[in-house]
Amino acid sequence: MVTKVELVARYGETDQMGVIHHGVYPLWYEAARTELIKEATGMSYGAMEEMGLMTPLTELTGRYIRPCKFEDRIRVEAYFSKLTPAKIEIIYEVYRNDEDTPANIGKTILGWVDKANYRPLSLKKCYPDLYRKIEAALETERAPR
Amino acid sequence: MVTKVELVARYGETDQMGVIHHGVYPLWYEAARTELIKEATGMSYGAMEEMGLMTPLTELTGRYIRPCKFEDRIRVEAYFSKLTPAKIEIIYEVYRNDEDTPANIGKTILGWVDKANYRPLSLKKCYPDLYRKIEAALETERAPR
Amino acid sequence: MVTKVELVARYGETDQMGVIHHGVYPLWYEAARTELIKEATGMSYGAMEEMGLMTPLTELTGRYIRPCKFEDRIRVEAYFSKLTPAKIEIIYEVYRNDEDTPANIGKTILGWVDKANYRPLSLKKCYPDLYRKIEAALETERAPR
Amino acid sequence: MVTKVELVARYGETDQMGVIHHGVYPLWYEAARTELIKEATGMSYGAMEEMGLMTPLTELTGRYIRPCKFEDRIRVEAYFSKLTPAKIEIIYEVYRNDEDTPANIGKTILGWVDKANYRPLSLKKCYPDLYRKIEAALETERAPR
Repeated sequence: MVTKVELVARYGETDQMGVIHHGVYPLWYEAARTELIKEATGMSYGAMEEMGLMTPLTELTGRYIRPCKFEDRIRVEAYFSKLTPAKIEIIYEVYRNDEDTPANIGKTILGWVDKANYRPLSLKKCYPDLYRKIEAALETERAPR
Repeated sequence: MVTKVELVARYGETDQMGVIHHGVYPLWYEAARTELIKEATGMSYGAMEEMGLMTPLTELTGRYIRPCKFEDRIRVEAYFSKLTPAKIEIIYEVYRNDEDTPANIGKTILGWVDKANYRPLSLKKCYPDLYRKIEAALETERAPR
Repeated sequence: MVTKVELVARYGETDQMGVIHHGVYPLWYEAARTELIKEATGMSYGAMEEMGLMTPLTELTGRYIRPCKFEDRIRVEAYFSKLTPAKIEIIYEVYRNDEDTPANIGKTILGWVDKANYRPLSLKKCYPDLYRKIEAALETERAPR
Repeated sequence: MVTKVELVARYGETDQMGVIHHGVYPLWYEAARTELIKEATGMSYGAMEEMGLMTPLTELTGRYIRPCKFEDRIRVEAYFSKLTPAKIEIIYEVYRNDEDTPANIGKTILGWVDKANYRPLSLKKCYPDLYRKIEAALETERAPR
């Protein structure tokens, strides 16, 4: 499953180089991640938190290939690339307007954490239903770019 | 009491006009407000929240007189300008480098809210000691600019 | 003319009070302003800048009535409320999900500035066509909330 | 050469998990990078841009080990870890308060780009003096963490 989210690059997201600041992309990844989780599990990220499951980010990578600019229509495609009982890896591709190749590619690794005590937990054991749904949504055939 | 906080304008805070984006100033006001509260009450803002007292913002005003730029050394001066049992008003003056007149002037009004139920409370009744300390720190003689 | 822009509140836009941080609203106003200018004039904000016309913000006001939360579908309605040769005033109403009354109301005043020398200019004189289009789009009948 | 920059974690930098949002760390890296470049070359980043040299980010990595919180005093240590004529790699270590081990470790790769035409350039050829100064500041003995 690949989720697509669309947004418009904001003026406040530019910097004095005249392009979108690199610090903005993690927020765009996040917008796509939120939607991906909802589509794959039927459960909103907010509801997951209320249930006691948090997913802090443990690793972030971004590759900046071509700059995005103010008012660009942005499309972020996101998919689960790896799942273990302790962690989930998600890949993001950021496209400008109607381009076919990504202008930016991101990856995040998130841990599953118990909200009550902030400790890692096994998603497979504690939330087997969520685990199965994400497993079923894993995108295993998409060639890495 | 007037609290002074110093910071350096960040690259990611600029926009493509080549100046600090207007959306950044509320964060600078906030940095000064955090320090002002600590200086006036001896209690950190974080500790106040843990105690059950929240101070959501109900009104924000900013006047943008001259632009700040990347790498400017910024000084924010902040003081309590009005206090009621329900609300506190704070004024901020943002100075660039060693200038004598503010490049930006802000004002925020914050309400006192009970963290448990998100309802307004009377600071005077519920936290009389805090109320007295803020009252004592009110800056009544500073001429408005 | 009232322009409507829709967006989704991002996780990174929340703060530890569990609501959208007040510093985010100016960016939402801006998203709506960008669209409003395009709809009213047929010219994108970016194209205006390339043409040599900049519109720095000189005043910002926000009233925070009810908090917005993560994953809220946000609708920002924006309209020109006042126009002079030197300045434009824009009002923003921020609605949560399908609510009928705004959770936040903003106002910005922007100046017309010559990009070449950063000095104020008369829109009426220098860009009469733009002036007329904005004048025609002024929303004079909307009751202030 | 290792540059140290100190800052205080801002309220607007937290998220509803009650910790500093992961998207903030690239801005903290940047604050340290700005200072590192100035210390190593004697030239401010802004002056470099005015001279015609831009350094867009091509790769960003962050490892999130322990969360930072609101009002934490943050120390970012940064150093040049690799230099080629086309690129520079910088490592960042983010420390909380007076801790000895980093709570977060970042890495960025930046390209040298000609501002006039946005094309990559050889720093060694075009700005040999800058190249030599950065080469002399390379931190080759610091063990990776």
